[in-house]
Amino acid sequence: MIIVLKREATEETAKEILGKIEEKGLKPLYMPGTERVVLGALGDERVLAELGLDGHPMVESLKPILSPYKLVSRDMHPHDTVVRFGRTNIGGSGFAVIAGPCAVETEEGLRNAATAVRNAGGVGLRAGAYKPRTSPYSFQGHGPEGLATLRKVGDELDLPVVTEVMDTADVEAVAGKADMLQIGARNMQNFPLLRAVGRAGKPVLLKRGLAAKIDDLLLAAEYVMAEGNDQVILCERGIRTFETATRNTLDLNAVVYMKQKTHLPVLVDPSHGTGVRDLVIPMALAAAACGADGILVEVHENPPEAWSDGAQSLYPHQFENLMIALKPVLAAVGRELA
Amino acid sequence: MIIVLKREATEETAKEILGKIEEKGLKPLYMPGTERVVLGALGDERVLAELGLDGHPMVESLKPILSPYKLVSRDMHPHDTVVRFGRTNIGGSGFAVIAGPCAVETEEGLRNAATAVRNAGGVGLRAGAYKPRTSPYSFQGHGPEGLATLRKVGDELDLPVVTEVMDTADVEAVAGKADMLQIGARNMQNFPLLRAVGRAGKPVLLKRGLAAKIDDLLLAAEYVMAEGNDQVILCERGIRTFETATRNTLDLNAVVYMKQKTHLPVLVDPSHGTGVRDLVIPMALAAAACGADGILVEVHENPPEAWSDGAQSLYPHQFENLMIALKPVLAAVGRELA
Amino acid sequence: MIIVLKREATEETAKEILGKIEEKGLKPLYMPGTERVVLGALGDERVLAELGLDGHPMVESLKPILSPYKLVSRDMHPHDTVVRFGRTNIGGSGFAVIAGPCAVETEEGLRNAATAVRNAGGVGLRAGAYKPRTSPYSFQGHGPEGLATLRKVGDELDLPVVTEVMDTADVEAVAGKADMLQIGARNMQNFPLLRAVGRAGKPVLLKRGLAAKIDDLLLAAEYVMAEGNDQVILCERGIRTFETATRNTLDLNAVVYMKQKTHLPVLVDPSHGTGVRDLVIPMALAAAACGADGILVEVHENPPEAWSDGAQSLYPHQFENLMIALKPVLAAVGRELA
Amino acid sequence: MIIVLKREATEETAKEILGKIEEKGLKPLYMPGTERVVLGALGDERVLAELGLDGHPMVESLKPILSPYKLVSRDMHPHDTVVRFGRTNIGGSGFAVIAGPCAVETEEGLRNAATAVRNAGGVGLRAGAYKPRTSPYSFQGHGPEGLATLRKVGDELDLPVVTEVMDTADVEAVAGKADMLQIGARNMQNFPLLRAVGRAGKPVLLKRGLAAKIDDLLLAAEYVMAEGNDQVILCERGIRTFETATRNTLDLNAVVYMKQKTHLPVLVDPSHGTGVRDLVIPMALAAAACGADGILVEVHENPPEAWSDGAQSLYPHQFENLMIALKPVLAAVGRELA
Repeated sequence: MIIVLKREATEETAKEILGKIEEKGLKPLYMPGTERVVLGALGDERVLAELGLDGHPMVESLKPILSPYKLVSRDMHPHDTVVRFGRTNIGGSGFAVIAGPCAVETEEGLRNAATAVRNAGGVGLRAGAYKPRTSPYSFQGHGPEGLATLRKVGDELDLPVVTEVMDTADVEAVAGKADMLQIGARNMQNFPLLRAVGRAGKPVLLKRGLAAKIDDLLLAAEYVMAEGNDQVILCERGIRTFETATRNTLDLNAVVYMKQKTHLPVLVDPSHGTGVRDLVIPMALAAAACGADGILVEVHENPPEAWSDGAQSLYPHQFENLMIALKPVLAAVGRELA
Repeated sequence: MIIVLKREATEETAKEILGKIEEKGLKPLYMPGTERVVLGALGDERVLAELGLDGHPMVESLKPILSPYKLVSRDMHPHDTVVRFGRTNIGGSGFAVIAGPCAVETEEGLRNAATAVRNAGGVGLRAGAYKPRTSPYSFQGHGPEGLATLRKVGDELDLPVVTEVMDTADVEAVAGKADMLQIGARNMQNFPLLRAVGRAGKPVLLKRGLAAKIDDLLLAAEYVMAEGNDQVILCERGIRTFETATRNTLDLNAVVYMKQKTHLPVLVDPSHGTGVRDLVIPMALAAAACGADGILVEVHENPPEAWSDGAQSLYPHQFENLMIALKPVLAAVGRELA
Repeated sequence: MIIVLKREATEETAKEILGKIEEKGLKPLYMPGTERVVLGALGDERVLAELGLDGHPMVESLKPILSPYKLVSRDMHPHDTVVRFGRTNIGGSGFAVIAGPCAVETEEGLRNAATAVRNAGGVGLRAGAYKPRTSPYSFQGHGPEGLATLRKVGDELDLPVVTEVMDTADVEAVAGKADMLQIGARNMQNFPLLRAVGRAGKPVLLKRGLAAKIDDLLLAAEYVMAEGNDQVILCERGIRTFETATRNTLDLNAVVYMKQKTHLPVLVDPSHGTGVRDLVIPMALAAAACGADGILVEVHENPPEAWSDGAQSLYPHQFENLMIALKPVLAAVGRELA
Repeated sequence: MIIVLKREATEETAKEILGKIEEKGLKPLYMPGTERVVLGALGDERVLAELGLDGHPMVESLKPILSPYKLVSRDMHPHDTVVRFGRTNIGGSGFAVIAGPCAVETEEGLRNAATAVRNAGGVGLRAGAYKPRTSPYSFQGHGPEGLATLRKVGDELDLPVVTEVMDTADVEAVAGKADMLQIGARNMQNFPLLRAVGRAGKPVLLKRGLAAKIDDLLLAAEYVMAEGNDQVILCERGIRTFETATRNTLDLNAVVYMKQKTHLPVLVDPSHGTGVRDLVIPMALAAAACGADGILVEVHENPPEAWSDGAQSLYPHQFENLMIALKPVLAAVGRELA
């Protein structure tokens, strides 16, 4: 940690702070400059939080040196983590395509979409039973019945299922039915929920929040891992920016950056990341080219009839085209479909 | 709702969509232009969601006309809602100042801060027992013990208390101790939690999310009101932008805009909205000048010793100065301290 | 400057970099930590740019300590700069209200607006002769004829005039007619233009760019001052964020922050900062309350007939109301109309 | 154009506006709803700007239907525009790689970088003689001497050159030396400059501004085309968002979206788009996969010695690796290196 003091800070203040740093077991550094005095503290920066230096009236700014996350960092764990989802390894050399409708609507509709997913080569089924909707007047999902339908269809077609859990009260129910628990963008910093899924014994798919910096996402994953669950997959799904032509701005920079900083697998959701059906396939290919470990895609048997997210859902034949298009791109970067 | 069709849309498609609009009980409109056919649907736009028009391959874009929220809208409820908090009315002519430390730390510390708040004229006490922290290694709050301490100190000093609830599982416990339930920025779209506080029988202080558009915030309030709770207060606390000199960008435009669109009271949190102690007082005055119904301010007996948010917490004497400075500004805009 | 090396950096690399720092006349610092080696360089950080440390493969990150601007900094120049505009001092205890239509349209229209401005107590006239418009099909301003009209009306009414210059080729012409040169938001980083107005011998009103961090704005002002012109006024006019309810997000935090960091006067433009007529007055009051040195406001004799920016232009009677409302707010913060 | 009136608007107001619409030669539409009256105007929406409807006190909002750009739109010009740059076609089936150092530093350094570019298969040389720098204390480019050096090295190595022009005063000089004129991000809305390069008789490479919506970029291109120059290439180079781990957020969504909306070629600059050397190659591959027509990449003979942008410049051997990696990705999407 680098501590920049205000111009008017006295030598006494500097000594006081250096003393506190030493008490915490860190190595203090004194760097008097021409315009400012700068202090340093070398060692585990997490203990410095207790010193409240950011609240000190003579401290101008604090500059952390070390990354604030530990368990998710590649520094301590250089090898890629591989998460098992059904019979597929996510995070290895394979590229995992998980697809399905936005929500569980009818059993038949889900079966039709899931069949299209499986036939085209998808390795997992996604669909929501609990739906986070901006408006209370929108369809909120079928809840437990939706979960049961999802499990049933997944079993029939031998596809593992991932579905969102929105509330700690539902973690047990969702973990009882799903093969992987999804934390949605709006809950990325729902810390009780992160802790609960950290203890649920199932892999966790953690989506980036709309205003989450990459470090925020990695710290959210740290919450899950700190509970003992190392089966965590990160998912870039677009951030909120000033651009309105697309629903979100898909930040593929973040995918590459995260693959370098963390050992956890990183997926991309080009459906939410664009919000526009015609952009999904090219952006899925871009995700494959830049090193993502897979994608999460919305497919509906008939998007204009979808109860939600129709604008960004692929038709089954488009999903098939996507799978065909992915193969050579993956081969070009030394990978293959999982 | 205005429905812009793609250039290549046929007349048949237009007729098909117009038919669906009519079936839903809305008035359909056909507007053929030189470059595009445009359709209209007049009436309650909420039922249009069921048509999935946004997923239709021949629909280029949808433009809603009516606001998506109803209960929170001033259209239907022109008079200001007044929320009772202790002996104070929030949302009337008075300007409510609620203050206190970021978190309940020690009972003595809380008592000292609360005494400073009360003595300077604050009408309510804020402090967190459950703390949403970006890092799992940061202090997470004392939980139930913190709640009990908060209640105790509030009672001693005759100050009503507001505190954050982060999980549906804790709503009953928090509602049992607090006079108002706070939904924090990171939970603004935690919809199960919004519904739960909507049923808890206590006023709700709803903070704007870091990436929440004003309409998102109003729809979040709609979730609470839809459960039958009309005691909702909105709070602008800064949004996340590209600017890094301040912790957040305090969006006072939103305060004025919301006062025009909704009947609910609107508070401002200049502590989180700036993240910088030296900016808190001027921005609190700005909030008073532009028409906010009050502020939520962090005050700590000794900010450099604060366990969290020290950098943005006022010293007690600064809080006193703030209260003194507020009076003439409020008088200038025809208000007074609540 | 703090230089964080990558984990894999050798001691030799550290020595090599320390040597370069010393060669530049700065004091080098070696801080070996448990996870990373950190280096420091104390002194004038500007010379470090020549070392290209940010391009070094073993450098993980650079953290500047000193502010990158010098001439605009309050550190070196603690007293407020006062800029003379007509008979008004901007940046002293007075609060300057400069107003007028978006563009010079007709002479009569300008005269009507200017008369309203003067009669209500405005101290300067603003209107564009060169208009930066997003679309080439929008009205682009009357150019030199507009300038002449502006000068004429200003002289008639004894109001100093400020108007935008968009191109180095026009600086002389604009400086020949205007009392102050405005650099618009879209040209805030048009560096040749900044240098040209720095040499034009007239005060400069520099508006913040839509994506400009505060430091970017201060460095843009540094360009002007580095040419020998210390008559620079900064103007916060809203930044571009995800919020779409308002045209821009007016960042009053920036006003307070800048008043602390720089000695230059800071104005606020609540017209562009909101884009909505009904928000202009409350936000102007907020600007006054938080410490701005004045405002720049759009007033049109009949906004629905305005050739541009009608939605955010005040009617003359609204401008009058604004001036009346400003007085007590200014008095409340110890200031008065200039 | 859809015109939503305020609730309190009278029928008279509606009639008045409908009359004005008709006068302008557009087809007026009257759509009375239950809560609001909505009006429509069908035809060339550009003439509506003259009506100042956005300034009308009874108008709540305006919703344009047609895109505001015409010449750049694919609607009117369905076939891809191909821009000739040296012997290369940009915008056809080939993928153009243009590379070089950030700035012209020394002749020898430029020659070394350019040789690396040519040997690895790059088709054009980029380097700045006029450099837009945030700080006045940073290297500002060699100006005319830099241009001469660039031309000389380009000729020697038979590489066409593209370089930035920052001021209308320099357009002739730059056009005299360069094969393509670059408008940088900070000048994307420098409208006099856009018009000047529109008349300069050379192809124009137009980079997206840091806060520019896609529509803003397309309208900027419309400025150039409106001067009679149809040799325009767009370039996505990252936008400014809240994310700080990377210098900018590269918005590949925009590439795909623009390829659908406009006939102009679209390049990607992964150097500025990431700001981090280790992210450049993966993001270049992503650009190729999603349909960009080429890339603009910074390459320096020795990045740690670069006078600017060293952190994002590739080493020559990395550029070679990039070219090797691009080939199979391009083949996978049915393209090849230009």
